[in-house]
Amino acid sequence: MNRPIHGGNLAWAAQIAGCPASLIIDFSASINPLGPPPSAIAAIEEGLAALTAYPDPDYTQLRSALAQYHQLPPDWILPGNGSAELLTWASWELSQQEVTYIVTPAFGDYWRALKTFGARIQACLLDLESEAQEIPAKLTSIDTKSAGLLLNNPHNPTGRLFLRDKLLPYLDRFALTVVDEAFMDFLPPQEQQSLISAVQDYPNLAIVRSLTKFYSLPGLRLGYAIARPDRLRRWQRWRDPWPVNTLAAAAAAAVVRDRTFQAQTWDWLLPTREKLYRGLSSLPGLYPLEGAANFLLVRTEQSSSQLQEALLKKARLLIRDCLSFPELGDRYFRIAVRSQEDNQKLLEALAKIGARSEGE
Amino acid sequence: MNRPIHGGNLAWAAQIAGCPASLIIDFSASINPLGPPPSAIAAIEEGLAALTAYPDPDYTQLRSALAQYHQLPPDWILPGNGSAELLTWASWELSQQEVTYIVTPAFGDYWRALKTFGARIQACLLDLESEAQEIPAKLTSIDTKSAGLLLNNPHNPTGRLFLRDKLLPYLDRFALTVVDEAFMDFLPPQEQQSLISAVQDYPNLAIVRSLTKFYSLPGLRLGYAIARPDRLRRWQRWRDPWPVNTLAAAAAAAVVRDRTFQAQTWDWLLPTREKLYRGLSSLPGLYPLEGAANFLLVRTEQSSSQLQEALLKKARLLIRDCLSFPELGDRYFRIAVRSQEDNQKLLEALAKIGARSEGE
Repeated sequence: MNRPIHGGNLAWAAQIAGCPASLIIDFSASINPLGPPPSAIAAIEEGLAALTAYPDPDYTQLRSALAQYHQLPPDWILPGNGSAELLTWASWELSQQEVTYIVTPAFGDYWRALKTFGARIQACLLDLESEAQEIPAKLTSIDTKSAGLLLNNPHNPTGRLFLRDKLLPYLDRFALTVVDEAFMDFLPPQEQQSLISAVQDYPNLAIVRSLTKFYSLPGLRLGYAIARPDRLRRWQRWRDPWPVNTLAAAAAAAVVRDRTFQAQTWDWLLPTREKLYRGLSSLPGLYPLEGAANFLLVRTEQSSSQLQEALLKKARLLIRDCLSFPELGDRYFRIAVRSQEDNQKLLEALAKIGARSEGE
Repeated sequence: MNRPIHGGNLAWAAQIAGCPASLIIDFSASINPLGPPPSAIAAIEEGLAALTAYPDPDYTQLRSALAQYHQLPPDWILPGNGSAELLTWASWELSQQEVTYIVTPAFGDYWRALKTFGARIQACLLDLESEAQEIPAKLTSIDTKSAGLLLNNPHNPTGRLFLRDKLLPYLDRFALTVVDEAFMDFLPPQEQQSLISAVQDYPNLAIVRSLTKFYSLPGLRLGYAIARPDRLRRWQRWRDPWPVNTLAAAAAAAVVRDRTFQAQTWDWLLPTREKLYRGLSSLPGLYPLEGAANFLLVRTEQSSSQLQEALLKKARLLIRDCLSFPELGDRYFRIAVRSQEDNQKLLEALAKIGARSEGE
């Protein structure tokens, strides 16, 4: 079995750990440990009776739930089969530009989607040592009117949050800017730096959102795009007519209305992430970066793939090595923030294994 | 609400009929009325506990179930989010040919997928009056080595079945032939004319299959492609990593093993379709074409959209007009074969409304 290039490949991990996949605690996929909300499961169970009908190709109910959530008209929203499906169509459009800039290290799926359509890609490296919430300086000196920009905010895998006001000036410079806000909903509303409120002013802006991370439904595939209706109608014409299955659509419409679950998640995340950050900082050889989302990127003196293997074999804990981010390589790993109890297990296992270069 | 371009848009139909969608008998979508099989629902319910994990990107279990069903190695099979998703990637590949031939009238989604990527399309009209199971004569005189061919078998909407031996000689002429066998499983195994057994001999052949029609799961989105492993790996690299959600994957693996449901369907279809065919033939102004699948195309003296509207308003029955097939226009409609009881209702309503041009 190949080493996984994304997080969350438990089948691979179980083989290394020599135990059933169900016994592994997964820190590699950045999924909310509080979910899925019971409202999602109830909606799916209720939806079972409707499987003999095709999905409504307009996804009227789901769009209306999302529209209400974001206070936008429904035709500014397009549901997708996970945000990855929408990245495919964003990339088809980006590939028609002369060049597309991406902020690196970048989620591997950006490379996949852009390369599929032969887009010319320009990587702009984030300054990992700087603490400023700035996007790379290179982006300030774009000299073409036919450039695309694809970035995520909060940034994965660093967890860095770009301020809305720092991003706005860039929107005029690019023929198309796609902002992947897959983790933005992990911030409480007053702290979010979403560009959703700017879509009506910037015709060249498209935002991609995920519901699978916050609502712990990665098996279900749920995402949506927010952009001008003409752009979304174009994406809709390009793709297959029913990309979101009816169970996923029903669950999505239910969870965005689930204020209880949302509040629980915000209440859990901040203190839990801070405690995990402090715990990691106190371990020799480990240097966590401050992050705004539900994961932390950690620099390590020891090889992260060795650390990953040791944690699997000795403690059945799966962390995300960063080999799929060539800029990070073997000196970084990423972990999801999980329950206090799971996080404590990870800190103890890390302390025991030791991450100092002279460690093992 | 717009007139639907695909079958199965019950929300639209309910508005015309002035009743809840649940009261409409849907002849417009060609879905097996016997399903979904209980094995599918059980697999979905069992899968609910695993929604917090990403789908296995290799879909190992599903591929192995499909491989066993078709007696092929697993890497010759690629699951997809409905066959429409696989048509997208087949079309991306076809668009790289000089020209792609399609047999018309053609399923609207072929036009969608090919146009998305700017493919040059050459339409080859079937001779609707001929009873021979032949593909259009034009295809015998292709003069380029860089042509693609996309056709379905049995053919939708005519229901015509092309014989395997008649198709084989064409495979060498095209750089890539994609055969959509979405309805082939409705034929009992000994009558199928599938090209699956030819994929290992013809590197330029790709077959697309659907599980949603036979197993009545159109809400779930389930399809797969069969082709050489290198081609499928390419499609997999192009598309998003987890196109099939875990519930759909679990249901698919269960239904292909469900021999009881398969036998029930074959036992039901043949006599039921024949009876419906005879019933339609006996009505003045209606001329059904013989079809091998679970639907019948019917020529009508009266406008099919007027007939559709009258059937909705007077009997809450939804038939498929053929306006999305420009070659057929307003003189044909398509109906799914349903239960004897439903079919009888349709025949009675048609007799009452009258389909003769001087009718109404």
